[in-house]
Amino acid sequence: MTTDTDNETPQPQFTLAEARTRIDGIDRTIQELIAERARWAHQVGKAKGPLAAAIDYYRPEREAQVLRMVVDRNDGPLGDDVLVRLFREIMSACLAQQEPLKIGFLGPEGTFSQQAVFKHFGHSAHGLPLASIEEVFQEVEAGNADFGVVPVENSGQGTIQTTLDMFLTSSLKICGETELRVHQYLLSRTGKLEDIERVYSHPQSLAQCKTWLRANLPNAEKIAVSSNAEAARRARNADDAAAIAGASAGHVYGLKHVVIDHIEDRPDNTTRFLVIGREIFPPSGHDRTSVLVFIKDQPGALFHVLSPFAKHGISMNRIESRPSHQGHWQYAFFIDIGGHVEEDSVRQALVELEPFTTQVKVLGSYPVAVP
Amino acid sequence: MTTDTDNETPQPQFTLAEARTRIDGIDRTIQELIAERARWAHQVGKAKGPLAAAIDYYRPEREAQVLRMVVDRNDGPLGDDVLVRLFREIMSACLAQQEPLKIGFLGPEGTFSQQAVFKHFGHSAHGLPLASIEEVFQEVEAGNADFGVVPVENSGQGTIQTTLDMFLTSSLKICGETELRVHQYLLSRTGKLEDIERVYSHPQSLAQCKTWLRANLPNAEKIAVSSNAEAARRARNADDAAAIAGASAGHVYGLKHVVIDHIEDRPDNTTRFLVIGREIFPPSGHDRTSVLVFIKDQPGALFHVLSPFAKHGISMNRIESRPSHQGHWQYAFFIDIGGHVEEDSVRQALVELEPFTTQVKVLGSYPVAVP
Repeated sequence: MTTDTDNETPQPQFTLAEARTRIDGIDRTIQELIAERARWAHQVGKAKGPLAAAIDYYRPEREAQVLRMVVDRNDGPLGDDVLVRLFREIMSACLAQQEPLKIGFLGPEGTFSQQAVFKHFGHSAHGLPLASIEEVFQEVEAGNADFGVVPVENSGQGTIQTTLDMFLTSSLKICGETELRVHQYLLSRTGKLEDIERVYSHPQSLAQCKTWLRANLPNAEKIAVSSNAEAARRARNADDAAAIAGASAGHVYGLKHVVIDHIEDRPDNTTRFLVIGREIFPPSGHDRTSVLVFIKDQPGALFHVLSPFAKHGISMNRIESRPSHQGHWQYAFFIDIGGHVEEDSVRQALVELEPFTTQVKVLGSYPVAVP
Repeated sequence: MTTDTDNETPQPQFTLAEARTRIDGIDRTIQELIAERARWAHQVGKAKGPLAAAIDYYRPEREAQVLRMVVDRNDGPLGDDVLVRLFREIMSACLAQQEPLKIGFLGPEGTFSQQAVFKHFGHSAHGLPLASIEEVFQEVEAGNADFGVVPVENSGQGTIQTTLDMFLTSSLKICGETELRVHQYLLSRTGKLEDIERVYSHPQSLAQCKTWLRANLPNAEKIAVSSNAEAARRARNADDAAAIAGASAGHVYGLKHVVIDHIEDRPDNTTRFLVIGREIFPPSGHDRTSVLVFIKDQPGALFHVLSPFAKHGISMNRIESRPSHQGHWQYAFFIDIGGHVEEDSVRQALVELEPFTTQVKVLGSYPVAVP
């Protein structure tokens, strides 16, 4: 924030009309600057050739850097997440001047996957709703979509196996990640708190709402079921039952909100999505690399695979094993590590683990999600 | 656009690094200005009292005026709709500093109603997904939601009667309107154009895609069915059948996109939503008024009711009759007219039609949707 701007801070005495006049002036300048930004972006696009589409000059690493600068220089009053969203939209609009990015996404999750597309690419991107995770991969591979957005894990249900398994055979690369917060609601047929004697939900959801339940429904029975949708299904047939579930489950079963606000104790109930594309982009300075490692089932193999990362001081965020579908006695491990494949330490570590594996496949190096 | 800014227009010769440096500088200034705008908005909020929530100083007529100014001064390169969206988000963020607006919306339409909420209130508003149109009205009436967003008509299915009927008894007011474009897709089990010999859809959807169908499927049989969901259901069981439907229908029935892009001939396939709240706001300068008029079933009654509007030069956008539920031989008419109830001509016309009616209920006066 420059001193110049601090001088503009509103004074305690002003009329509503004065404030509006000032705001109108600010808006006019913001609008001029956005237009100027768009013209610069257009020049960058034109430099790539007369037929360049957004895909030809979309640079996820540059976008991540811009957003991190926004966060670094933010000293309020708006939150980092709000400013990131505004600048994401400004970049999205500037990028879409020639031809917007086409982003395939998974339909079954409905609203959430589409929200993830807009969160990551802004509303100027063109979202293509597709019927399955397989179809998202296919359309990106075929070039009908520039990128795809697929869910990979959520704190309620864990890893989405279908997505991981697609990488076993696909040649697509991970180009980004984004996280979406998912809220929990208390839903019942009558919508009245005093009616509730039983609360159904997935064990993780029950755990996530423990504090709220203890304070507001201390005597109600908590019953764990296989999914939140199942909880909603059970709650629809009795006046004394309620479900903890996402809002969409409530729609399907015609349940009412017992309380309007979400009831999870901590705001960490999130779904993580991967952005898939056809190439790996350069480093943004704060990146993650996902590798798929096929290991022979022999004593100590996994330890040998992991030790190069430790040796080179590379953090490991996640490891998950899957049957490789490529033969007995062989396992596939999905491993997320800190850094980019173009960094020496990462490249070196990947070379060092080769002797202990049958195959190492770099799924992608991509900017760590900006909040 | 000032001359000052025109001087900043990018020159043909520049390196990518130069362009990025310029864009970084522009972003820094935009960010400073957004922060300054937020501080002014905060002062406006504080002036309303220490406990003021967003609802206390949300002014839809002012927002509409700001957006119209944005459109008026836009001379590219970004489109009006893009700039309106960006400024909607900036206003939304500034408004949400104290406590965000809570907006109830109808769940069954899923994605579309939620999109309408975000389009009208920006992403800093807090959306409350509810199970029915009735519940949206209830929660706004009870004060649990500040506003509600409900669909009222779409070009595919016509008027949503449930919404209109709620106004027969509710005391809520219409505070705004927003329109959302809805796209049509060609969906089939195989996803291959050459397989298609029959296309199912609602007659209106078939009509909307006539040009595309004539060019791409001239020999396929066009079969009209009761809804697009029904079309998708029929298409799922045969390799030679396709449906024209919204993307969501494809998800439900596991159909594939035959072509990735939407196929409607004209971009006028829209759903109109109403924003409902507890009061009528002042004029924005370009407003619409919705009235509900109960008429005795006697010869010429409707003509007498409509003539005052013509006499005062008031445009009439829409008229729709409904059984009043208040007795035999009485009809309710929903009429949308140009202008605001605080304008003399509108007020005068409403007074003049009283003798011919049993009741005149002003449902709301609100800014005409900014694109």
